[in-house]
This record gives sequence, C-alpha cells and structure tokens, in this order.
Amino acid sequence: MKIYLAGPDVFLPDAIEIGRRKAAVCARHGVHGLYPLDNAIDLAAADASLAIFKGNEAMMDAADAIIANLTPFRGPSADAGTVYELGYMAGRGKRCFAYSNDPAVYAERVARSFAVTKAGGGHLIDDDGLTVEDFGLPDNLMMIHTLDLRGARLVTPRQRPADIWHDLTSFEACVVLAADRATGKSD
Amino acid sequence: MKIYLAGPDVFLPDAIEIGRRKAAVCARHGVHGLYPLDNAIDLAAADASLAIFKGNEAMMDAADAIIANLTPFRGPSADAGTVYELGYMAGRGKRCFAYSNDPAVYAERVARSFAVTKAGGGHLIDDDGLTVEDFGLPDNLMMIHTLDLRGARLVTPRQRPADIWHDLTSFEACVVLAADRATGKSD
Repeated sequence: MKIYLAGPDVFLPDAIEIGRRKAAVCARHGVHGLYPLDNAIDLAAADASLAIFKGNEAMMDAADAIIANLTPFRGPSADAGTVYELGYMAGRGKRCFAYSNDPAVYAERVARSFAVTKAGGGHLIDDDGLTVEDFGLPDNLMMIHTLDLRGARLVTPRQRPADIWHDLTSFEACVVLAADRATGKSD
Repeated sequence: MKIYLAGPDVFLPDAIEIGRRKAAVCARHGVHGLYPLDNAIDLAAADASLAIFKGNEAMMDAADAIIANLTPFRGPSADAGTVYELGYMAGRGKRCFAYSNDPAVYAERVARSFAVTKAGGGHLIDDDGLTVEDFGLPDNLMMIHTLDLRGARLVTPRQRPADIWHDLTSFEACVVLAADRATGKSD
C-alpha cells in the first residue's frame, strides 16, 4: 500500500529529515510512504512551481491513500496545499486519513486570533460578521467528514504536544489505521 | 452546464442573498449555478454537519465545474472548506475556475500577519522558521496550477475592491470563462 504523505512538513527547516522519519514509520508498519520532497525539482527553474505541482499530482495518482497533516498552519485551519490534496484524493476515490497535533475545536482556534462573539441569532461570528463554524469539530466540516467516510476519524492527541511540528505520535496512529485497512481486505 | 458555487460566501450575514445574486449572474450567461445553501438542512439536528457535507458532495457530483471564491479567509490563504472542494472537483475531473478579490501574492499576504524574514539560504521564512512559498503566486501552488490546467488562470481584480465579500466582478469573469468553455465544445 502506497500512502501519500501530505502536510506543511515540507516547509519545515528540517523538511527532508521529517520526511525520512515519516517514511521510516510507514516502513515499520509494512506500508510505503511517498513524500513530496522525494521528487527531484530544480527550484531555480522558471517553472519550478508547476514542476512541484505535477510531481505531487503524479505521486498522489500513484498512491492508494493519503495521510494529511492537518495541524493548523498560519491561522485556525490546516495548510491550504494539504487541504487541496485531501480533497483531490477524496475525489479520486482514495482512502483518506489525517491527524492534527492541535486537538482544539475550530471555534476555539478562531478565538485565539479573532474576536468571536454571538450574533443576534445565537450563532458565533468573527470581527467581520462572518459565521464561525461551531459543530464541535477541529476544522471545516468538509475535511472532517470526508475522513469519517473515506478512512478514519481525524486523529488528535489528548493534549497538544510540546513540538507540534515534529511529534509523530498521531501520524503513527494514522499509519496503523491505514495499514490495518490494507490487510485482510480485497482492495 | 451546472457550476458548483464554492466559497466562504455561505458564512456571510447575507449568505442567502449573495447566493441568489451569484445564481442570477450564472443564469444571465446561460449556465446553472448550484449554491450550497440551496440544500435544505435542519441545523438543529444532531448530525447537521454531516448532512451539510453530504448535500455539498451530492451537489458537486452533479456539477460539471466549480467556481471557487479563493479570497483570503481568516489568514493568508483561502477558506479551507472551499479549498477542499476545489481539490475534490479536480480529483473528479471537473472543470475548475476560481477568483480571489485580493490580488496580493502569497508572501505579501503572509507578511501582513507574520514576521517574514530571509533565512540563511535566501528563502523567506515566517516567525516559526517555516518556509513561505515565494513563487509570485497569490496562494498555494497546488490550487493555482490546478486552475491553470483544468479551467483558467485564477481571476483577480487589478485592485482589491472596497467590499471584498460582495463585489462580484471577478466572479462574473469566471462565469464568462466557464460559459465559453461550455459552448462549442463536445464535452
């Protein structure tokens, strides 16, 4: 079973090393992790961003499943590139798994950076008057429910780990879930 | 041609009204806009979020194309639910169009809320030391290039309009692009 390893991990200072650690966790559980930075890209080329896109898409097409790191990234929600990839894999009918190293529900996450208040109708709104999703889920419902239906419930730690970018406990739990699905099933 | 109208518009105080305006623009150009809030959902039900998910997914499956509102939402990137839906539609092989009412490039958007500096290697990093994508694109490259390959380049205004949540000029430009693709083509 090949698993595409999506996440803002590629933006870490030790992006290559974390990819190696994730691939090693996969190997330990008998599955094969595909990490975006395994694609050889010439970052100095004029079309580098398109080459990265094509490399990532080819890797996703080759994979049976995705494990997405949905830890909040520059705001209350997950990294946009990772979310796009989760949607793409769902659309392609692949198995979808994900984790977030921040277990807080979405409304709490928004309240860290914005003034969240109750509108006249009783629902939560932000500074701009836009509704704040308040279903007790950690992020936007589209991502959360696609996991429920196409893989497994979002994995979160009981408490936010000290190093949210390097703690792989919840990632490993996803690998175990994915590997379990791969064995003893015809697909 | 049926077009799924994705965007954080559903979170606006006048969410239903903006959906009607978008559908009217579509009708004027001979295409049919499908707006998430057209689904009848009982928000008081225990499984309301799952019902919304299923309604949105059924609507996307029924559509030939998506027009996504990728205007930055609670941070430098687009709304996570919208980004997921763009990925899903790309994965399903549908035509993909999008606009952003904020024409700024991603690195500029990040610099509005975070301290962006140059790392030793010369690339941009944020306060946490994570790389800031710097390809001169308005948002994450996965979203931008899927549009280039599956529909049309991201539509942005020359200048940010006064009301980024209600100005439909760039939306209408997407509708025109989508309608042009629908006519005179076998698919």
